[in-house]
Amino acid sequence: MRIAETLEELRKERSHFDIPVGLIPTMGYLHEGHLSLVRKAREECSSVVVSIYVNPSQFGPQEDFSKYPRDVKHDLDMLRSERVDLVWTPSDAVMYPPGYQTWVTVEEVTKPLEGSIRQEHFRGVATVVTKLFNAVQPQKAYFGQKDAQQAAVIRRMTRDLDFPIDIVVCPTVREADGLAMSSRNVYLSPTERNSALVLSQALFRAREAFDAGTHDADQLRQLVMDTLASEPAVKVQYVSCAQADTLQELHGAVERAVLSLAATIGRTRLIDNIIL
Amino acid sequence: MRIAETLEELRKERSHFDIPVGLIPTMGYLHEGHLSLVRKAREECSSVVVSIYVNPSQFGPQEDFSKYPRDVKHDLDMLRSERVDLVWTPSDAVMYPPGYQTWVTVEEVTKPLEGSIRQEHFRGVATVVTKLFNAVQPQKAYFGQKDAQQAAVIRRMTRDLDFPIDIVVCPTVREADGLAMSSRNVYLSPTERNSALVLSQALFRAREAFDAGTHDADQLRQLVMDTLASEPAVKVQYVSCAQADTLQELHGAVERAVLSLAATIGRTRLIDNIIL
Repeated sequence: MRIAETLEELRKERSHFDIPVGLIPTMGYLHEGHLSLVRKAREECSSVVVSIYVNPSQFGPQEDFSKYPRDVKHDLDMLRSERVDLVWTPSDAVMYPPGYQTWVTVEEVTKPLEGSIRQEHFRGVATVVTKLFNAVQPQKAYFGQKDAQQAAVIRRMTRDLDFPIDIVVCPTVREADGLAMSSRNVYLSPTERNSALVLSQALFRAREAFDAGTHDADQLRQLVMDTLASEPAVKVQYVSCAQADTLQELHGAVERAVLSLAATIGRTRLIDNIIL
Repeated sequence: MRIAETLEELRKERSHFDIPVGLIPTMGYLHEGHLSLVRKAREECSSVVVSIYVNPSQFGPQEDFSKYPRDVKHDLDMLRSERVDLVWTPSDAVMYPPGYQTWVTVEEVTKPLEGSIRQEHFRGVATVVTKLFNAVQPQKAYFGQKDAQQAAVIRRMTRDLDFPIDIVVCPTVREADGLAMSSRNVYLSPTERNSALVLSQALFRAREAFDAGTHDADQLRQLVMDTLASEPAVKVQYVSCAQADTLQELHGAVERAVLSLAATIGRTRLIDNIIL
């Protein structure tokens, strides 16, 4: 497994790779969710590149950039076991050198949900993913369904900007008790960790209702809200039943939708979703 | 010479090309300025791709998008004579399909000069060039020095977004009497065409003064202004003596600068520049 820290090192390594090249962009502190993306890429691609970069431009000024968990040594050990070919670990000076001034914005699909709460978040995501795509030049790129709106934004951007890259979105990986895996779960105290179970439980209960015939979007959102309300430690930011590509809220009977939510527990913000 | 109108056709042709591939992005209505870029690419590259696309997103609502001159048949004849391998002539439906919503913005370098007059112009330029880069995947791309700020914007964007592409900027090609070649020169009446000569004359006179020892930026700008003032048909929009990469105005003694101007003659807007 090679490790590249500069663009020159990356390009040199990349030039020897068999295609298709698969890219898994990450912010590190890897868990089974990330590894499921790596394994999917390993199945589908001749060469697998993982990037590890905690991208400052996708964090708001009040957010957790500085305390975001980092453990690159452990990440690299995990990736070696997965037979990754190359890990791209650029510094901030490589990614945003002095004079940096170019941004990629995606409009409508970034406005609701996460975008309504996290100003500039998706501008940072779209920009860094554009840079990773250009630097690594993959044929396929892998993202988790856990970040449902991010996946929709990247798909839209890839189509709009004519990137010759297949975007592969893989299912959310969960702990045995249902909690969606996230690097931010490490912030939770044991009590908060227990309260957080209501997030996935609320979604699963809505899925049961959906499967039993409750297809009305407003009723599904209300069902999620009602379940979340049973846990006073959980402060709900939104509950959404939306069209999967545009993230526009749906009303009336739905056949297919993304049911998603964001909530804070103590000082930790978590998101989760299921596809109906 | 092949012609591609859809992304699928383009990608199929591109997949057979020897590298390096050189791209010359144009809005068509080709003249010797464009052909000088094609010839430079032909010298330096194994495969040469020219795009012809009048990009609506770089024209303001009051600008000349609908009347911008077009003659694709004649353009194709010229490109055949230059041994171009592929011409990419996408439609608006291919470039901006329904739901399109992604934009590339470059900040500081787009603010002065053209950017101060043509709102959103460089957003359109940066976006369409990103799309052309992703669609054609060239190793080199060729632009004219005539559009000095555009060249600076593309260079900045290419570096910031990590495109693995060399940006080659070629000298402005002029008519025998000094007028910088431009597709928009066709708008000029014979009288206006004659008045327009003062633009290049003003720049050449400033260069003579520079070569004779006048290196003060304010004096150089004033010299250009004074020459332009001798032609009442010319309405000056700006005269600039600026740093070549950032387009920031310079003051005091300069060693290297871009001396540029924009003016209208009747209803035609022209720009020109020289490098000192």
